[in-house]
Amino acid sequence: MRVTVIGLGLIGGSIAIDLRKSGVATRLTGVDQNDDHASEALRLGIVDEIKCLDEAIINTDLIILAIPVSAMVGAIGDLLSRVTPEVTLIDMGSTKAAICKSIRLQRNRGQFVAAHPIAGTENSGPGAAFSGLFNKKTLIVCEKELSSYSALRVADKVFAAMGVKTIFMEPVAHDRHVAYVSHLSHVSSFLLGQTVMDIEKDEKNIFDLAGSGFASTVRLAKSSPDMWAPIFEQNVEYLSQALLEYIMHLQRFHYHLMKGDSKEIHRIMTEANEIRRVLAGIELKDEKTNNVESLIEE
Amino acid sequence: MRVTVIGLGLIGGSIAIDLRKSGVATRLTGVDQNDDHASEALRLGIVDEIKCLDEAIINTDLIILAIPVSAMVGAIGDLLSRVTPEVTLIDMGSTKAAICKSIRLQRNRGQFVAAHPIAGTENSGPGAAFSGLFNKKTLIVCEKELSSYSALRVADKVFAAMGVKTIFMEPVAHDRHVAYVSHLSHVSSFLLGQTVMDIEKDEKNIFDLAGSGFASTVRLAKSSPDMWAPIFEQNVEYLSQALLEYIMHLQRFHYHLMKGDSKEIHRIMTEANEIRRVLAGIELKDEKTNNVESLIEE
Repeated sequence: MRVTVIGLGLIGGSIAIDLRKSGVATRLTGVDQNDDHASEALRLGIVDEIKCLDEAIINTDLIILAIPVSAMVGAIGDLLSRVTPEVTLIDMGSTKAAICKSIRLQRNRGQFVAAHPIAGTENSGPGAAFSGLFNKKTLIVCEKELSSYSALRVADKVFAAMGVKTIFMEPVAHDRHVAYVSHLSHVSSFLLGQTVMDIEKDEKNIFDLAGSGFASTVRLAKSSPDMWAPIFEQNVEYLSQALLEYIMHLQRFHYHLMKGDSKEIHRIMTEANEIRRVLAGIELKDEKTNNVESLIEE
Repeated sequence: MRVTVIGLGLIGGSIAIDLRKSGVATRLTGVDQNDDHASEALRLGIVDEIKCLDEAIINTDLIILAIPVSAMVGAIGDLLSRVTPEVTLIDMGSTKAAICKSIRLQRNRGQFVAAHPIAGTENSGPGAAFSGLFNKKTLIVCEKELSSYSALRVADKVFAAMGVKTIFMEPVAHDRHVAYVSHLSHVSSFLLGQTVMDIEKDEKNIFDLAGSGFASTVRLAKSSPDMWAPIFEQNVEYLSQALLEYIMHLQRFHYHLMKGDSKEIHRIMTEANEIRRVLAGIELKDEKTNNVESLIEE
């Protein structure tokens, strides 16, 4: 299959690597508006060639879009109106409501599959891409019923190459759930990083004391603002709600702390400990085999 | 050296393992008010014998205290008033001001070394203890000048066995810095866990979406409330200050998010990205050899 990857960062680059490794891609064409990223991806052998967008979308079978979600909204509609009917488009955006809404009435909506792989690291750019990033992770597909049989067939091959387990959600439900679990974590980490650098003037102390758990809590604060700012903005409604809840919980904790209410402090922490049980299932999930043909009901 | 470890959890257990492995301990006696922890530590071979406190503090050369900081304050003064002059006491408490103040005027203060190893995991109990927990981590020593030469000699051997790099701080400065870097991270993580479980009613979604970075951000929320509630309470002044700063940063971010101020959102995140540079030194630090004899000026 001839594959075009638009956006050669961590996500697009890692998919390209998986598609080549699995044999799904027979030729990989890359597009990136950042010339440095484009030439780095070529140099690293992630793609076979770099083309401009107009050339990259002809004579191809599959287009993977892995660009910031702010650019995604206009791009997918534009691409759908220009590609031939055999081409499949799959996006990897972290928000889904605005993207799905933007092309819902498009004549050839069926050629598009809306996807969000729940995977990533705090690193960005083609140099951060690696094989296995998506292995055994969850990938959410939205509005599967609006994708054509042939597009879903192509998507199945891509998702199998990535090694993901697919689940389905409505776009609005998707955005709400990822705001609560993923986007809030990123905000909490970004602001923790900023706060600590603000109050702890001596960087040497941050460095010396980071082994205390700070390093892992603040890991996501290293994430790319170019990728994450548009996600937060597109998901402002649910993220705002989650953020206000978080602030409220922090304020309540602070109140009990100041009151010296040991019992309540202990109770809140014990309640939070429940997250161990909730997350324990992750290991179980990792044992499962992937449902390779999950997109198509036979 | 005959060693008594009081508190056979993650910290006390891991030190016992290191002291045996290095040959520093010739006999290890354990004390724990939790009978299950005591017998588990014995079964795992972490200690050679379990004794009651009164018996464990006679015929020993070194006492390591690794109990919650709320119990530490009274315990150290009590122990110092009971042990023979050859015995060295080292605590592993995560707060230092109250502990150091409680024994500052004690006649035999010199037998005590106030220590805080910057290491840990989200797990607790003797089953969580392992060799290497402290390897290449930072250990903070407070009021070194109040410890005797012979106590520092013993501490040097212990810290070398743990593999830590020692640094020095005043007790109040210690508490302030760990509030900013370590304790605030724990609070942010505990409350993130509680918030997400509160707003995301479907645990399956938390489980499915945890790969998004949530799992690492919330890791510390699994920590022991028995250990951490007393730390927060003892360090309430500086923790409160750090927590209010954090809440203020979150509220400011929320304000810009609601205003749709993309530029400011992007700027805040770019500022937070600086944490990558600050933490990058950790790898450098890991390369350094340990300063084994750092406690004693030759």
